[in-house]
Amino acid sequence: MARINDSYLKLQAGYLFPEIGRRVKLFTDANPGAKVIRLGIGDVTRPLAPTILKAFHDGVDDLSRGESFHGYGPEQGYDWLSQIIIDKAYKPLGVDLKPGEVFISDGSKCDSANILDIFALDNTVAIGDPVYPVYNDTNVMVGRTGEANDLGYYQGIVYMPCTEENGFAPELPQEKVDIIYLCFPNNPTGTVATKEQLKVWVDYARKNGSIIFFDAAYEAFITEADIPHSIYEIEGAKECAIEFRSFSKTAGFTGVRCGLAVVPEELMGTTSSGEQYSLNKLWNRRQTTKFNGVSYPVQKAAAAVYSDEGWAQVRETIDYYMENARIIREGLSSAGIICFGGVNAPYIWLKTPEGMTSWDFFDKLMNECHVVGTPGSGFGPSGEGYFRLSAFGDRENVETAVQRIREKWGK
Amino acid sequence: MARINDSYLKLQAGYLFPEIGRRVKLFTDANPGAKVIRLGIGDVTRPLAPTILKAFHDGVDDLSRGESFHGYGPEQGYDWLSQIIIDKAYKPLGVDLKPGEVFISDGSKCDSANILDIFALDNTVAIGDPVYPVYNDTNVMVGRTGEANDLGYYQGIVYMPCTEENGFAPELPQEKVDIIYLCFPNNPTGTVATKEQLKVWVDYARKNGSIIFFDAAYEAFITEADIPHSIYEIEGAKECAIEFRSFSKTAGFTGVRCGLAVVPEELMGTTSSGEQYSLNKLWNRRQTTKFNGVSYPVQKAAAAVYSDEGWAQVRETIDYYMENARIIREGLSSAGIICFGGVNAPYIWLKTPEGMTSWDFFDKLMNECHVVGTPGSGFGPSGEGYFRLSAFGDRENVETAVQRIREKWGK
Repeated sequence: MARINDSYLKLQAGYLFPEIGRRVKLFTDANPGAKVIRLGIGDVTRPLAPTILKAFHDGVDDLSRGESFHGYGPEQGYDWLSQIIIDKAYKPLGVDLKPGEVFISDGSKCDSANILDIFALDNTVAIGDPVYPVYNDTNVMVGRTGEANDLGYYQGIVYMPCTEENGFAPELPQEKVDIIYLCFPNNPTGTVATKEQLKVWVDYARKNGSIIFFDAAYEAFITEADIPHSIYEIEGAKECAIEFRSFSKTAGFTGVRCGLAVVPEELMGTTSSGEQYSLNKLWNRRQTTKFNGVSYPVQKAAAAVYSDEGWAQVRETIDYYMENARIIREGLSSAGIICFGGVNAPYIWLKTPEGMTSWDFFDKLMNECHVVGTPGSGFGPSGEGYFRLSAFGDRENVETAVQRIREKWGK
Repeated sequence: MARINDSYLKLQAGYLFPEIGRRVKLFTDANPGAKVIRLGIGDVTRPLAPTILKAFHDGVDDLSRGESFHGYGPEQGYDWLSQIIIDKAYKPLGVDLKPGEVFISDGSKCDSANILDIFALDNTVAIGDPVYPVYNDTNVMVGRTGEANDLGYYQGIVYMPCTEENGFAPELPQEKVDIIYLCFPNNPTGTVATKEQLKVWVDYARKNGSIIFFDAAYEAFITEADIPHSIYEIEGAKECAIEFRSFSKTAGFTGVRCGLAVVPEELMGTTSSGEQYSLNKLWNRRQTTKFNGVSYPVQKAAAAVYSDEGWAQVRETIDYYMENARIIREGLSSAGIICFGGVNAPYIWLKTPEGMTSWDFFDKLMNECHVVGTPGSGFGPSGEGYFRLSAFGDRENVETAVQRIREKWGK
């Protein structure tokens, strides 16, 4: 009799974004005339850049001729893509990587979920709160946790509250933890970590033999100098950190699908008998056995992101979104709504007006302003009373949304 | 201290295909002038069909304009793609499916590996021998097995030998098993199962509450009438089977990446407390949480496979490969080499001449004929003494390879 993985039954409700989609669908079905503005899911809206489109088409054309046809590629991605990422995205930060340390994937969601495969179940995991729900849910799904309590905290996970009091920067856990999820610029709070702050984590990890999962999906949105774009800018991080990056937000690839994980050769985990073992080798085995590489034309398109022309075009789109972020942040702040983030990240993290719960505000915002955002509590219990607005949207929509919110809740 | 998943250390050597790649690279580096013909990895060589290319380009073009831009799609794939698969690939077989039962993925390798996520570790798993190595290795990696014995059999897995004696058709296991991997047309032996043979498995699974993982990646290569293309052609299979399909071999998508898993709504697993629970719901939760959908232009290209024009073009390429299969099979058979498969599958499974081991024949074939194939023992202990040749290749290369082998080993 085939037995299911009972751990799935511990998951509460649906994954956040499908639940938002469900409520939006109910609303739009009932109100077909409403012009709903979606600043909920962090999904890009601007077209791909011309240079990227050309490379994408060229990649497809390669598949039209026997002599340039590409079948199975390396599961880890093509070296020419890894190399351009190393040269253009890491070298300027003073970070040297080898192609064998860069694993091209179909996105950071998959990577940050799948990475758990290579770790033992009995590791203690620390997760920010609020945070991208995938970190928490995938740990529940693999069976690392007990049941959730009334607040939504799962037994066995160490949660690190990120609140207004600590500037949304998690503090070192009291107990010893083996795996630490960090995400900067942060989703959902839009906050960043300085080099000094990251150094505290790297030092902790090195001292305790812990591994940091560093999610840098939003690094391209950093506008302030001196904010690190990679954890490897911190000395010693190669001995204790795996970094995830994504083309999704950087280059509008949410529907195209490409990301990468960096697993340095120095990085070691411990076997049950106490020996050191290369995580790079384990991840390589995982990827070669369970994954078949990213679509060839997609990799061609991704390589074009880091061409001089491509990068200039990509920057233009990022600037566009960050101007949206400024409009939201300043528009709402000047109306008396307390906002965080939005300077080095495409997310504005606002305190709900009138002390509403996050979901109450979600419903009210949708029903009365026809604006969709993301309830802060969906990212973790400490997100209750907060709300995430995304700067991914068309300018006019963003301006309209801000105006509607100001009219409704502005002081 | 971060602990690794020790189960990975039980894996023997590398995954088969990287190991072949390593040996081929050693040979070609040492013999730069040798014209090596690769009939090893089952990788397509013919360009994409014109109608598919056009749809692929159109999909990329959609991303060039705001009004047709596509960001995140449904993790399960677009309904328009699921619907066309249902209408064109399943309805003609008399199989009715709903879009919610079809999950578009980036390939069958991922699906057949990831499906284990939703099952408990204590299920007993039965795997053919020889077989696509991913089935075995992923079970080792999740920790379902003990160590391998000298033959390469892992403790805890029930192996079903597929030998010349039983016509390469696995027999029902003596012990009760919960999960059964079946692959027809078979990789690597190229054999197929009749409806009567599949019915035995479906009846067994229904009686025992087992789940069948049915890998139909090669169904498009079936040339004989009355051979089932889907396990759902067998009555009751929706209550006991998950089916995997792929565009890789069907439409030359090995470098494009698209496949699908069918998880019928009727399909139930059992919780630890003995209740029935929908596997469709579990897989949906798995995919929405750990996967972010297939590249939009790729899905557009995949949909074109099942257009009237696209399908005619795809058939032409399949016919080309199957003519290769005939040339290999007849060419080697008439020279006294014993061959199986190659009629309903793009693989020829041959008995190594002179009783050589599979790897000895691999090395000899590469060194003396400059032909690369796949050692049968790489697919499991019962594959020892056999060798897989793939019909994916250019005609001239296939003819040359056959000629070289006949000259060397023909009688």
